[in-house]
Amino acid sequence: MPASPLRVVIAPDSFKGSLSAADASAAIATGLRRVWNDVDLRLVPLADGGEGTLDAVLSAGGRRCSARVSGAAGTAINAAYGLLAADAAIIETAQVVGLTDASATAHAVEQRSTRGVGELMRRLLDAGIRRIMVGLGGSSTNDGGAGLLAGLGLRLVAADGRSVEPTPAGLAALEAVDVRDLDPRLAQTRITIMSDVTNPLCGEQGATAIFGRQKGVAPEAVTQIDARLAHFAELVEGALGRHAKDSPGAGAAGGLGFALLLLGGELRSGAEVIADLLGLDAALDGADWLITGEGHSDRQTLLGKTPLVAARRAALKGVPATLVSGGIDRNALPGLGEHFAGCHSITFGPATLEECVADASGLLADRAEQLARVFRAAR
Amino acid sequence: MPASPLRVVIAPDSFKGSLSAADASAAIATGLRRVWNDVDLRLVPLADGGEGTLDAVLSAGGRRCSARVSGAAGTAINAAYGLLAADAAIIETAQVVGLTDASATAHAVEQRSTRGVGELMRRLLDAGIRRIMVGLGGSSTNDGGAGLLAGLGLRLVAADGRSVEPTPAGLAALEAVDVRDLDPRLAQTRITIMSDVTNPLCGEQGATAIFGRQKGVAPEAVTQIDARLAHFAELVEGALGRHAKDSPGAGAAGGLGFALLLLGGELRSGAEVIADLLGLDAALDGADWLITGEGHSDRQTLLGKTPLVAARRAALKGVPATLVSGGIDRNALPGLGEHFAGCHSITFGPATLEECVADASGLLADRAEQLARVFRAAR
Repeated sequence: MPASPLRVVIAPDSFKGSLSAADASAAIATGLRRVWNDVDLRLVPLADGGEGTLDAVLSAGGRRCSARVSGAAGTAINAAYGLLAADAAIIETAQVVGLTDASATAHAVEQRSTRGVGELMRRLLDAGIRRIMVGLGGSSTNDGGAGLLAGLGLRLVAADGRSVEPTPAGLAALEAVDVRDLDPRLAQTRITIMSDVTNPLCGEQGATAIFGRQKGVAPEAVTQIDARLAHFAELVEGALGRHAKDSPGAGAAGGLGFALLLLGGELRSGAEVIADLLGLDAALDGADWLITGEGHSDRQTLLGKTPLVAARRAALKGVPATLVSGGIDRNALPGLGEHFAGCHSITFGPATLEECVADASGLLADRAEQLARVFRAAR
Repeated sequence: MPASPLRVVIAPDSFKGSLSAADASAAIATGLRRVWNDVDLRLVPLADGGEGTLDAVLSAGGRRCSARVSGAAGTAINAAYGLLAADAAIIETAQVVGLTDASATAHAVEQRSTRGVGELMRRLLDAGIRRIMVGLGGSSTNDGGAGLLAGLGLRLVAADGRSVEPTPAGLAALEAVDVRDLDPRLAQTRITIMSDVTNPLCGEQGATAIFGRQKGVAPEAVTQIDARLAHFAELVEGALGRHAKDSPGAGAAGGLGFALLLLGGELRSGAEVIADLLGLDAALDGADWLITGEGHSDRQTLLGKTPLVAARRAALKGVPATLVSGGIDRNALPGLGEHFAGCHSITFGPATLEECVADASGLLADRAEQLARVFRAAR
């Protein structure tokens, strides 16, 4: 009876700036196949709820769809989303109001809104979807989720009774909110919020103070915008009789987390949700080795990034997990050592970041091969 | 009964420019001990006969001695050598006429001589030594070994009967050689020449044409010096009734190889001799893993460099060999893959050569640790 082939689970995050999670998985598989002719490889490209989430999820099944909705600056765009079942869909916020959409970020952050995300959710409700996963991360907006709620029927009203825009600028004139037209189907809808951010909506640890700068909020505007979001949040919390602005994650995606929490959404680690969705646990059953990775690993990785989630699940199944990243902060090695059976980079000697990015796929395949040779030698 | 501890042989060459072989071995051991409390480590720092050979050999035993002899430019220096037994010694040519001796290389290569190496051999003969290993490599001389023979009693004679200097410049006036005073004890002495160079003394593949430039021979002087060495070689070959100038290795160390071959020396791979001397085979008996390494690995490594010698010996004992180097030329990976169970570099991401050299010991310890974690996971 021949020995059963080695079973290896390949479950990296994307290597941001160079490789999608699917490309990274394929590169690792290429390397391993050079070592073992007969190896049972299970590719489970992962994501953390941010950019790359939709690609990772759809690589395992489901259908890529798109809808014409408002981009962050109001212009109509085609936003991709994933249909996972007749009543379940996944939204990647970055596909609607992403920081990489230059046509939207040409406008000031004060003019940007998450309305398109609300519009997209409404389209999903129209289609009978009652299970919506929303990956936060990579958004260009800082509107407290006012846009999302507006897209779902909330009316934002000024002193003169006119509607105001659901943007940081528009919220300056906000006097009242009208929740009567908020989509009633939301009450029957299960929303999962995928984010690793635990910040509240406002204050020193809030969305504007902590993440505003990277979206273009001027330092001198932080206090004013933070106050507008707080005012908006109090009005809508009062109208709905619910509270969310101080909840962990309310400050994710410029306050989109707040709006989704207010709608009853459950905040979960994106990496955990994706790992569940893609069946990582089942893939690990009976596996001999897990290889995971990401663009750069440091102490942040230890706070629950995708590779750590993968390693923890592997540990529960008794499967050793090896990390292969573009680069590894050696200061994190003692901590990483508690979770990973080896932390390795794709480099083969002195090299620039540009050289690594330019041939990330080839380097990753070569490194995976060389690690597999060590693994094989030890058995 | 507790399982016997894992047995790992650590046998790197030096990492030129950053770590001696002993330091590299110690760094690898540090990394492995972080992973295994109870591990049987056998440190066998290696060398290839060039610079670092004396240190590597003496790390395993023997006694470091020194003798006052002529440096390459004629000034007296204290040259280190190793006493390995009552009748056996090892000479590292670079310790006598090394390229790194700036006081000697301040003089033109035409004025430099290997006389000091001959003087040192004579001192060893005086001390009763009849087994001499000479590591070539790293020499600053290109005298065809005329200096070595002069140091051992050969007389180089000009047309007017006066002695000429055993240097490229002196050989211009050479008309005859007198071998009557050549030390008779050489006939009872076993000489091992350690070198990986297989070039002949003269001609297009000769010492001057191939290695002259790096010692300071001007391109326009190559032909003239090559002719002088050929003339010298023919005279001394005729006088001794032996031939060596066309033998492989005659062109090593600027022709020092020729002189030693003419004295009956046996040319062997430095890495092989050192591996024998340090008992690498015995260390590999019953070992589970060999870790070897060097500063930089490329296709040259495949031609018989120290790590390859170590890997071949490990293969004969069924011990997997992993390579850890400062940097690895990925083009050589397919070839290296036939000998090594994994080829890895000390880098943990994009980095400059200077950064790698500055913390080579720490990087090597960390990399060895991370590889050991993979190895442990697979068992």
